[in-house]
Amino acid sequence: MASDTDATRDARLATLRAERDRIDAEIAALAGAPVSPLAPAAFPSLAPVAGVTCATMATGIKYTGRDDVLLARIAPGATLAGAFTRSATRSAPVLACERALAAMAGGPAAEGAAILVNAGNANAFTGRHGEEAVARATEAAAAALGLPVGAVFMASTGVIGEPLDHARIAEALAGLASAQAPGGFDAAARAIMTTDTFAKGAGAETRLGDTTVTLSGIAKGSGMIAPDMATMLVFLFTDAAIAQPVLQASLSRLNGESFNAITVDSDTSTSDTLLIAATGQASMAPIASADDPRLPAFEAALGSVMQDLALQVVRDGEGATKLVEIAVTGAESDAAARRVGLAIANSPLVKTAIAGEDPNWGRIVMAIGKAGEKADRDRIAIRFGSLPVAEHGWRDARYDEAACAAYMKRQEIEIGVDLGVGRGAARVWTCDLTKRYIEINADYRS
Amino acid sequence: MASDTDATRDARLATLRAERDRIDAEIAALAGAPVSPLAPAAFPSLAPVAGVTCATMATGIKYTGRDDVLLARIAPGATLAGAFTRSATRSAPVLACERALAAMAGGPAAEGAAILVNAGNANAFTGRHGEEAVARATEAAAAALGLPVGAVFMASTGVIGEPLDHARIAEALAGLASAQAPGGFDAAARAIMTTDTFAKGAGAETRLGDTTVTLSGIAKGSGMIAPDMATMLVFLFTDAAIAQPVLQASLSRLNGESFNAITVDSDTSTSDTLLIAATGQASMAPIASADDPRLPAFEAALGSVMQDLALQVVRDGEGATKLVEIAVTGAESDAAARRVGLAIANSPLVKTAIAGEDPNWGRIVMAIGKAGEKADRDRIAIRFGSLPVAEHGWRDARYDEAACAAYMKRQEIEIGVDLGVGRGAARVWTCDLTKRYIEINADYRS
Repeated sequence: MASDTDATRDARLATLRAERDRIDAEIAALAGAPVSPLAPAAFPSLAPVAGVTCATMATGIKYTGRDDVLLARIAPGATLAGAFTRSATRSAPVLACERALAAMAGGPAAEGAAILVNAGNANAFTGRHGEEAVARATEAAAAALGLPVGAVFMASTGVIGEPLDHARIAEALAGLASAQAPGGFDAAARAIMTTDTFAKGAGAETRLGDTTVTLSGIAKGSGMIAPDMATMLVFLFTDAAIAQPVLQASLSRLNGESFNAITVDSDTSTSDTLLIAATGQASMAPIASADDPRLPAFEAALGSVMQDLALQVVRDGEGATKLVEIAVTGAESDAAARRVGLAIANSPLVKTAIAGEDPNWGRIVMAIGKAGEKADRDRIAIRFGSLPVAEHGWRDARYDEAACAAYMKRQEIEIGVDLGVGRGAARVWTCDLTKRYIEINADYRS
Repeated sequence: MASDTDATRDARLATLRAERDRIDAEIAALAGAPVSPLAPAAFPSLAPVAGVTCATMATGIKYTGRDDVLLARIAPGATLAGAFTRSATRSAPVLACERALAAMAGGPAAEGAAILVNAGNANAFTGRHGEEAVARATEAAAAALGLPVGAVFMASTGVIGEPLDHARIAEALAGLASAQAPGGFDAAARAIMTTDTFAKGAGAETRLGDTTVTLSGIAKGSGMIAPDMATMLVFLFTDAAIAQPVLQASLSRLNGESFNAITVDSDTSTSDTLLIAATGQASMAPIASADDPRLPAFEAALGSVMQDLALQVVRDGEGATKLVEIAVTGAESDAAARRVGLAIANSPLVKTAIAGEDPNWGRIVMAIGKAGEKADRDRIAIRFGSLPVAEHGWRDARYDEAACAAYMKRQEIEIGVDLGVGRGAARVWTCDLTKRYIEINADYRS
């Protein structure tokens, strides 16, 4: 079948592909890691939180020319709550945080607490060495701050399977302890970045009874797990006074609607860590029970900060060009709605269609079908924003391909799905899947 | 922060990106759909099967210049068995096949049977119209062949949500009936292709007692589901005589180790259909029970054909450049091993690492951790082929980065994982995730 025409075409293709590879390499060299097109315009102005001080430092664990360790000190009497990855291969720092939180047994950190974070090495799948590294680093932090060793919470993000050079961190701790200052959440957010293209922060103020309390939070993450080195870490600080069991319950519930409702690539980190410290330094009687009338206002503020940070993580999803909200209704239960939402959000075919700005709703039907949840094929309805797409198990009579194609050109897209079988509902968020994701994760590594 | 240097760089980047887009478009126009680099050298020589005839025809449902409908006639007395997608949004033809198979109630097709396949339209999510299209097309086939309408099995593959022009198929059926001829599996395999880059076939002969029986099979598929239009369809034919319940049990069991053990992109089709017809025209007493001593030889031959076709589907995975086998051992059960294998096989981070020829075993640790199955972090072992990577929950002391990097350059890669908690084992197969996958699914669609 080979012909002169084929040979000419093949030669031209070879030339074009070589030229494209050369251009790709020059773009990679010039551009470095470009900031996500979905990034907020600027880091927000975050208020200091009474009872919380921070310091950051460059230890050169992996990165050069930037801070890579954060030490945050929490005043005595604060309550702490947390949520962690459920990975069966979770890291040594995560296991240590879980133990430290359990040891507090629902009470406050009587002598105070600290959060120690390093970027560049996840200290995950590092066996006994990993446990020792956490022990040595947290002992050094406790000694520098005059705290019990069990009151130091460590989080690590970066490469998996490499020994963590804990001595570098230990050496930095005296300096980090003496440099403690209020605020500084901007520098803190930068110090914990890995493949993030922008620093992530969000804050809120809210009235609890007669008192205004402050909530400031930072996060890092560019995927549930990104390249070799990434993870989602979130640290929240408030001066509200709130008993530990109430704080933990609020955090866990709101986590389901924020950080547990986002996905970039369906890959779960070994190291995800979410911690909140409530110093109680606002002038208020503590919120001691779940039926305290001030709790809804606190949860509203906390929920908005967590939601904001969670969406910033999706906005920094590797290679993302679109922020996608998937709203599922009519499911058998909220849990079923969430599973259908995640099946759509994690479908490579749905995500590539969105990248291509293609209103390819057949792929959404496919993803609904594969989710393993009850759906009534003849009652499923689908919409893009407010544009009708499908109803009664077939293309909607009002479907307008041109209008839907125009809608898909937006930077923020909402997909609505009604399953037609019940009252369960959930929202999840994701980003699109682009060639840049492949470049980040395949092309430009050794 | 903007400077002259930044402006110069940004201008250069814009020029480079525009040039790359131009080159991409020219490559797309010139190259069309290239054949997968993992394709077999040629379509195999498949023996005709006594009691089976085929014909193909071009009806122009979607494609032009190629056959797009297949009609296979099965002689009276044959037994048929099948397996189908479990999608909650499965297509009208799949639902009709399930009903037809159930109506046979474990017995033979006394008056014979037929398989009618069209490519270009999946007839999925088409509501009542979809059911009618199947009814009209199967009625026409039954009339043309003098068969009961319940004996015609239809399978459709292609775009979701578009009405199927069943009149075009009905018009072709008289011609398809009169053109029936033995063999012709090569043309049959080509007629059912959608985004496949090569036609897929496999065959075997085996001795059952004193008789040699023949097994010939064809498949199409380029992903669990590919673009707008794709799906996995598999049709197997044998002259062996085998009772329906035994045939169904063998097919279901072997399906778990072949077509249900492969994944390209974790997206499940609305239309997956696997059918086998055993005509019983070989001179043998029927295999009537599961303890017939000839059954193991039959299953070995059937299993080898199914395995071969399943791997051909992976080899034609969209954008694939590597065929990857994942062997999981030491799991709590075989089912747990399969789930861990699929978690690794479906992880975008593992798949992009393989595309980048990067022995990035930390991502395998991550995927094991997220699978939700029991694993002993301190006993997990990982290997690439026979090269040790990790043991006892950390990098193996014998780990050789250069040797592993060289191994990853192969076209066929084996990843071995031992979870250290039990005796469960499974094998799954997948391909890598490349920029070409994104191009196929995002870049070059309307």
